[in-house]
Amino acid sequence: MRNIVVLGAGRSATVLIRKLLDESTEQNWHVHVGDMDRSLAEQKTGGHPRAIVHRVDPSDPDQLRSLIDLADAVISMLPPPFHYDVAVSCLQHRKHFLNASYLTEELKSLHGDVLSSNLTFLCEIGLDPGIDHMSAMEMINGIRAEGGEIFCFRSHCGGLVSPESDDNPWHYKISWNSRNILLAGKDGAVYVENGQRKKLPYAELFDPLRLVEVPEMGSYAWYPNRDSLAYLSLYGIEGVPDFVRTTLRHPLFCHGWRKLVQLGLTSEVSTTGNLGKTMCEFFHPLIGNTSNWDDTLRAQFHYLELESEELITRDEVSCADLLQSVLEQKLRLLPNDRDMIIMLHELGYQREGETNRRWKKASLVVKGDNATDTAMAKTVGLPLAIAVKAVLNGKISRRGVFIPVYKDVYKIVLGELEKQGINFLTTEQAIP
Amino acid sequence: MRNIVVLGAGRSATVLIRKLLDESTEQNWHVHVGDMDRSLAEQKTGGHPRAIVHRVDPSDPDQLRSLIDLADAVISMLPPPFHYDVAVSCLQHRKHFLNASYLTEELKSLHGDVLSSNLTFLCEIGLDPGIDHMSAMEMINGIRAEGGEIFCFRSHCGGLVSPESDDNPWHYKISWNSRNILLAGKDGAVYVENGQRKKLPYAELFDPLRLVEVPEMGSYAWYPNRDSLAYLSLYGIEGVPDFVRTTLRHPLFCHGWRKLVQLGLTSEVSTTGNLGKTMCEFFHPLIGNTSNWDDTLRAQFHYLELESEELITRDEVSCADLLQSVLEQKLRLLPNDRDMIIMLHELGYQREGETNRRWKKASLVVKGDNATDTAMAKTVGLPLAIAVKAVLNGKISRRGVFIPVYKDVYKIVLGELEKQGINFLTTEQAIP
Repeated sequence: MRNIVVLGAGRSATVLIRKLLDESTEQNWHVHVGDMDRSLAEQKTGGHPRAIVHRVDPSDPDQLRSLIDLADAVISMLPPPFHYDVAVSCLQHRKHFLNASYLTEELKSLHGDVLSSNLTFLCEIGLDPGIDHMSAMEMINGIRAEGGEIFCFRSHCGGLVSPESDDNPWHYKISWNSRNILLAGKDGAVYVENGQRKKLPYAELFDPLRLVEVPEMGSYAWYPNRDSLAYLSLYGIEGVPDFVRTTLRHPLFCHGWRKLVQLGLTSEVSTTGNLGKTMCEFFHPLIGNTSNWDDTLRAQFHYLELESEELITRDEVSCADLLQSVLEQKLRLLPNDRDMIIMLHELGYQREGETNRRWKKASLVVKGDNATDTAMAKTVGLPLAIAVKAVLNGKISRRGVFIPVYKDVYKIVLGELEKQGINFLTTEQAIP
Repeated sequence: MRNIVVLGAGRSATVLIRKLLDESTEQNWHVHVGDMDRSLAEQKTGGHPRAIVHRVDPSDPDQLRSLIDLADAVISMLPPPFHYDVAVSCLQHRKHFLNASYLTEELKSLHGDVLSSNLTFLCEIGLDPGIDHMSAMEMINGIRAEGGEIFCFRSHCGGLVSPESDDNPWHYKISWNSRNILLAGKDGAVYVENGQRKKLPYAELFDPLRLVEVPEMGSYAWYPNRDSLAYLSLYGIEGVPDFVRTTLRHPLFCHGWRKLVQLGLTSEVSTTGNLGKTMCEFFHPLIGNTSNWDDTLRAQFHYLELESEELITRDEVSCADLLQSVLEQKLRLLPNDRDMIIMLHELGYQREGETNRRWKKASLVVKGDNATDTAMAKTVGLPLAIAVKAVLNGKISRRGVFIPVYKDVYKIVLGELEKQGINFLTTEQAIP
């Protein structure tokens, strides 16, 4: 009998928890789910006989430790700031650790100890990061095996609203952590273009006309995602003159969001003296005169009702705080709405001895069933569920702190994902 | 035995001619094809035993007359300026007349005489105009029959390049008359929005962010097409507060084209003294400094090579002349390229006794097989072929000069188109 501990029962954990419970009898697992909100954990486990629910405050080390002590493997679905403490506790108690968040320098520093403890700390094993790395590496290694030379690699991914549920002028609904939407791009982005390191500041990130064509889906806008450079060596493609990892959005989302950024409405700087002000009193001076805006922008801002008579109930707030609460309300997924994730890799290469260069594209489109069984929860949860099973069963035997860029890891996970209907569509064409 | 005369054997006539010849034995037709370029007519008829090829100069009334005299019905695929003379000749010789071009006031003026001669002059029976009217009327009449009240109708259509053949930064290839691309929108556009008559001048027509979502195809930009107002009464929807007919393009086409317009490069004003100048000498003063342009625009202009060292071989030319010849070269369909037409009707309505309003959408996507059997040739040619057969067989018995907005006409043509694979996809949803 093995014990899997899942920390955090939020919206991205829904499919993960169900998948683990579905396999729990056959695998002889107990699945422990810990969350600050015990009722959320209960709801996600649905009274399954092999589920054990815990109320856990992740900021309390004792509570964390006593739960981790029960585990053979721990999956952290907590917000990023908690991962390091969880990981340290896993190391102390000699438990495997998995998460779907970006690997930090702090976590990387545990590598030696994790290795000597014969443990697997597998990070970035969700959607993005996660499926993106695995499918990228499979593509890159496939081209390399044929002797192809890569001149461009662009890896796009977006959590979007499916067209049939797209009924607002932002063409977006929130299917994940809403704070991250406010924070996205804050630090600007770095990538490589024409052999040059290119740095885009936050204010220039959102461009509705930086478009890419997704096979069978049409045009989407992309903006570069954080620091792409680090992945050049992780993907083993140092020296490729064009490389970027991006986020996909509807072009008009980028159009509207650029305006929000220009107006300073995503600023996290707090001001005081706001208690009892109306939203209009707060936002109107920032928004100013909209008469020379285009119809789309006006419809987008009108839709958010930022200039309402609603009263602000806190004294110290930032624009980002207020905007976030508005977006959570206005851009929420309704119960029957379907979200959608799109991933697209564009790989330009030249075969040995050929004069024409070629484009190879691999695209993945997953739609949610409703606001609970989202595409986001499926594509984050399934790789984690597949990976933890493979770690516990010894099929993934790699040790240390790492991300899934290795063939012995991604082959297993992608193979299982394909069996579960997470399939890439591949197209290839010569460049005339 | 009946004789059908097709005037003009250009690219839009390919499928029409083949379709008529395919049915010629069963229907006991002879198909006469007349073109200035006899070899083009020969190529399109491929030596079919029921095809008769003629060299015809359409500006020579005698040549026109002697050919029309052979006919039972005449289909004019000639450029618009020739239609009136052909029609007058058809009236004199008592022949039915069909074309796929916009009905002019001049042609309309023949209505009384055509009617009293018991003839059918069916115009706008191609794609756009043509299939758009027929499918629009079927949709509108369907809603009306259910007692629904229409508050919005937008009818979009574009002749585009299919995504798998889209390999240039304009995201466009020419699948029809290239002069029309230069002329498109020159007179601005008039439509209705929020109950107001809206007039857009040429300079404001092309906007990459005026987007619409095409089911299963993604986002396309639209620009209003000529004078939509006239169609309010033709469609029987006077008083609908939002109504527009549009042209669809890739958003980045509109982005680049707007710049061409802004720079005056679509101007038809001729200048002299150009013989022996280089293209660069001609265009550089107009284009000026591009350093503050975005990457897309730079890539688009670079692709056209307007600032080349190529010599201009005429003394008197306009920007539009030179631009057209460049576009014909750079944006041509290669032999295996596939064009694509997209048509989309968006109809907003409210059912009697319901509080929610609803959107009904009907979309049509047709792809070409290659640069000869284009989607454009199929969707222009098939309605004409179906209609001429129905006129000759008495299934269309309406007389006078008219366009296919009448149920007795569109039911026959749409029914046949559906049998031949030209199917609309219909979606419907309540507005929350």
